[in-house]
Amino acid sequence: MVIMSQYTKSGLKNDCFHEIESAATAMAREAGRILQYYFQQTLKVSYKDTRMRNPVTQADHASQTFLKTTINRQFPGHGIVAEEDVDGDTSIAPDFLWIIDPLDGTTNFIHGLPMYACSIGVLYKGEPVVGSLFIPWPNEQRGIILHSRRGGGAFIENSPLAIRQWSAYKGLQLAGLPASLGLSYSFNKRVRNQSSDARTTGSIAYELALVAQGILKYTVHTNPRIWDVAGGIAILLEAGGECIARDNQHSDRKNSKVLFPYWLTGKTTIQEIRDWSIKSLVAGKSGVIEKSTDLLHSRSKLQDFLSSTVRKLF
Amino acid sequence: MVIMSQYTKSGLKNDCFHEIESAATAMAREAGRILQYYFQQTLKVSYKDTRMRNPVTQADHASQTFLKTTINRQFPGHGIVAEEDVDGDTSIAPDFLWIIDPLDGTTNFIHGLPMYACSIGVLYKGEPVVGSLFIPWPNEQRGIILHSRRGGGAFIENSPLAIRQWSAYKGLQLAGLPASLGLSYSFNKRVRNQSSDARTTGSIAYELALVAQGILKYTVHTNPRIWDVAGGIAILLEAGGECIARDNQHSDRKNSKVLFPYWLTGKTTIQEIRDWSIKSLVAGKSGVIEKSTDLLHSRSKLQDFLSSTVRKLF
Repeated sequence: MVIMSQYTKSGLKNDCFHEIESAATAMAREAGRILQYYFQQTLKVSYKDTRMRNPVTQADHASQTFLKTTINRQFPGHGIVAEEDVDGDTSIAPDFLWIIDPLDGTTNFIHGLPMYACSIGVLYKGEPVVGSLFIPWPNEQRGIILHSRRGGGAFIENSPLAIRQWSAYKGLQLAGLPASLGLSYSFNKRVRNQSSDARTTGSIAYELALVAQGILKYTVHTNPRIWDVAGGIAILLEAGGECIARDNQHSDRKNSKVLFPYWLTGKTTIQEIRDWSIKSLVAGKSGVIEKSTDLLHSRSKLQDFLSSTVRKLF
Repeated sequence: MVIMSQYTKSGLKNDCFHEIESAATAMAREAGRILQYYFQQTLKVSYKDTRMRNPVTQADHASQTFLKTTINRQFPGHGIVAEEDVDGDTSIAPDFLWIIDPLDGTTNFIHGLPMYACSIGVLYKGEPVVGSLFIPWPNEQRGIILHSRRGGGAFIENSPLAIRQWSAYKGLQLAGLPASLGLSYSFNKRVRNQSSDARTTGSIAYELALVAQGILKYTVHTNPRIWDVAGGIAILLEAGGECIARDNQHSDRKNSKVLFPYWLTGKTTIQEIRDWSIKSLVAGKSGVIEKSTDLLHSRSKLQDFLSSTVRKLF
């Protein structure tokens, strides 16, 4: 858990994050209701790319419109970076930035696979300070809300959320791995023989919510966009988790600095935040993901990164 | 849909399957409630293998005890092959055999991942005639029941179930692929470039339920056991789906003959059914899985089988 002092020094009060967390939680809940309404309905699907791999539906738009309208009304001085916005906004980013993915896992959603999320992450000067997520769940509300604020802990609904001790079960653990990993890379023997079973859900934010609950031991995501991970990282860090991002220059960033360490108040633009790009993100319980310095001297293949990073996970 | 004539000729009435289907549906519903009760509770886990990859819990046992007790009471002349039974039952199998997996996806269940199933398949002389499945779902009942009888169609609760036309969405389709596939085999270029995105849930019966609903376009399962697939295949065939099993002699079996074509009334034993073994099973919509004869002359690698079998899927 990160100490608040740097924020109280800067004049921000804990109350400030508290208010944002409350609002973000209510927004995730309402956006979740919007998504539940559209789930398993016939949808109007359009594609953002010529290969038709990147769909968008009226559910994405309805959720995003609700979120942006609410944020603009409640926090008029804050900025917004939303997945379905268009590129090219070179205006200066305010210190408080809402990073929203109105529907992560749109391809699953279109086909009726209940593995998707609405993800809200709030950055202060580039660091994740508040997160909220909606994911579908087989409970009476048909979904759960996870939320956090920096220094205030993480919650699932109103209950404190801490990554469970998976050591309670000595056998096979679960890991979230992207499908492309198995198809594009061969794992080295060390990883292959370890006692973890891969799951692939197709929604990064959904998997981060599973890691925060201790259901998946760790996840690996390749080339995520900032709206896929901002909400989940904020929650995971407060739930006792840790993240390592490997950037495109093959160096690692961890935890609160994982997202945007190059923040310059009055200089950083909305478009720079949209352009955020990393090679991979590994997320899991604190203390089990190690610094992968030996990677820097490796053949720069993903499996080397993985085998060094997840070595202590098994 | 398979014609009933062979069964009416043999003296069995449609009513007979109808009664079994009603019972199997009620049993899947109650077993689902038992599983819902234990889900996300702390479980007593033991392991059936020394590598601790094959767990069993009191949820598996409670579900199986309920199912076996109910079948024995309602259908005293029928046989039962249940996952958690011990090997070595060399008694003759009755013509009607209930193949049950009280909890498919136990590893997911232990960790709280809501991707699991209770699977019930009824064979008549080795062919699947009735199926019922419970899977968790984000609806008010926290789960759904799928069921079918041969010639009577498939249903999701009380609504007719037919594999949806995925052509409605032109973009990326979803495929259920085992994690081991990506880790152990490299796909050839033809498969790799096709527009389907892999999902890995870790429960075969859960994935067959997704195929029957048209959510996954097809699934591939390697080395399934008969209780993983009997219920799902029965439902899939009635929902407009098709299955190809590649046996250990590298020949293909399809559809109603997919499970146990070597049935001999008065000879086949319970243990022979338990020992059922195939190399792989591909399940999808009818007309898109082709006969993979060219496979017989291939290098006998799984990817060759896959690329020939799923060629028309994309």
